[in-house]
Amino acid sequence: MRRLVLAAVMAFAGAAWADAAPTPPPTAPELLAASKPQEWRRLDPENLLYVELPSGRVTIELAPAFAPRTIANIKALARKREFDGLSVVRVQDNYVAQWGAGDEAQPAGPARPRIPAEFDRSAAGLPFDRLRDPDVYAPQVGFSGGFRAARDPVNGRAWLTHCYGTVAVARGTDADSGDGSQLYVVIGHAPRHLDRNTTVVGRVIEGVDRLSSLPRGTGSLGFYKTPAERTPIRSIRVAADLPESERTAFEALRTDAPTFAAITEDRRSRLDAWYKSAPGRVDLCNVALPIRRVPPTDR
Amino acid sequence: MRRLVLAAVMAFAGAAWADAAPTPPPTAPELLAASKPQEWRRLDPENLLYVELPSGRVTIELAPAFAPRTIANIKALARKREFDGLSVVRVQDNYVAQWGAGDEAQPAGPARPRIPAEFDRSAAGLPFDRLRDPDVYAPQVGFSGGFRAARDPVNGRAWLTHCYGTVAVARGTDADSGDGSQLYVVIGHAPRHLDRNTTVVGRVIEGVDRLSSLPRGTGSLGFYKTPAERTPIRSIRVAADLPESERTAFEALRTDAPTFAAITEDRRSRLDAWYKSAPGRVDLCNVALPIRRVPPTDR
Repeated sequence: MRRLVLAAVMAFAGAAWADAAPTPPPTAPELLAASKPQEWRRLDPENLLYVELPSGRVTIELAPAFAPRTIANIKALARKREFDGLSVVRVQDNYVAQWGAGDEAQPAGPARPRIPAEFDRSAAGLPFDRLRDPDVYAPQVGFSGGFRAARDPVNGRAWLTHCYGTVAVARGTDADSGDGSQLYVVIGHAPRHLDRNTTVVGRVIEGVDRLSSLPRGTGSLGFYKTPAERTPIRSIRVAADLPESERTAFEALRTDAPTFAAITEDRRSRLDAWYKSAPGRVDLCNVALPIRRVPPTDR
Repeated sequence: MRRLVLAAVMAFAGAAWADAAPTPPPTAPELLAASKPQEWRRLDPENLLYVELPSGRVTIELAPAFAPRTIANIKALARKREFDGLSVVRVQDNYVAQWGAGDEAQPAGPARPRIPAEFDRSAAGLPFDRLRDPDVYAPQVGFSGGFRAARDPVNGRAWLTHCYGTVAVARGTDADSGDGSQLYVVIGHAPRHLDRNTTVVGRVIEGVDRLSSLPRGTGSLGFYKTPAERTPIRSIRVAADLPESERTAFEALRTDAPTFAAITEDRRSRLDAWYKSAPGRVDLCNVALPIRRVPPTDR
């Protein structure tokens, strides 16, 4: 029987078409396959965090251009092994998965100096590849350093946005009450109302499904009611601290590359035969940010 | 230790404030608690579908105003027990969970008459409570019959939108190749590019986490590679066909009710003390559509 799918990702079988038929547009996989090496940037292992769960690894790319002090603290906590043996304490459906120290059952240890909130930063001098599409929440959206970002030309500020896979700092009521010891990952529709309300530190580039498929907490706000329900965090490590044999090398498609513009345009125009109505626009959080593993022989 | 949370849902302890302090605004739970009975509508059991999984029930409200022929066919299939014993065949992270007949391993049975696509409908005479906020994909968005919807004043058409929990018909390349025997539920960031490309039949009102927390399929497009990985569908039933003791009675807050306007405004303005930056706007898919169970004594 025919397999019913939502989106055709396979190329047309061009040979089956009459000579007069128009050439079908290249698909996103074809565009990526034809990209040039210089359109990709190698991810710095100093900015990669490995969260080791029983099911495997979740890899986060950190964004020190936006949250330098918080990220320095997170890396210091990882290097002191402070995350090891903690757990995922909260999974709220269509919202966030959250782990780390700081709730009732997992004391954060001795009081640490407070880290100032890093909710936004100056846009001056910041690279920003603007997306031309409109946005509900911000006057301008686009990409900075490979991350989805927003910008306000009136006050000259820029910030990272909450999309699926965004990693940010949980906090209490005070703006500076989060130090990075408790982090959350977005696992639902973009909660863009959190933009400029928490310190965004990066995004998951691989393994987000290890968090999004966890059982939901049945307590208030998706917290687990009992410790037994929690998923252990075996360790959190900075990739640079591991021997090369335990790392994965990644490349990200540069957001100023022609291939990035082409796959983004493909998401707007949806020219393949499955689509009957072209959206014409693309939401910031629906733009693809392609990541690829670098084969060991190419490192 | 203090519990770090993302959003404060508890009311302020007003008594702890000095007399001169401003009265904190009512929270969404307080607004709902103060709502009037006539602001709620009882859901019609003829429009409720129960999907019974091993983990429990997923309840779908159907939208016959938008997809009358497809929904009639889905109910006919349910009444012929055609879904029973099938399974969830696809779970693609940040996209959809999909079940039913029609893929290679689950033959759809004898060919059925094709159901015309119901991607949109005339907006003439259709109730539409418009949301004043902008939208990336549609000229106008709002609510119709309790569902998130969009409208184009130029061509006079209206359609249901893809948000978290939306239920729609999987199909092949031909617009009329889906008959409702295979359905998908959105379990990630709103894939609004699917709007007007598939027939939306309703939304999950309870139990969507039973789908969103399933293991992701590791095959192409999130299809499971082996039948053993699939989650069985024990049955799909129209609520009206079950004895009252096996049903749950639900009410939905009317989208033209003052309380609905108040909780939507709360999502825009976020006046509680946790928020340091008010979003000022709300995305259609982030507007809450409150549902409550009716206690048996009130039925």
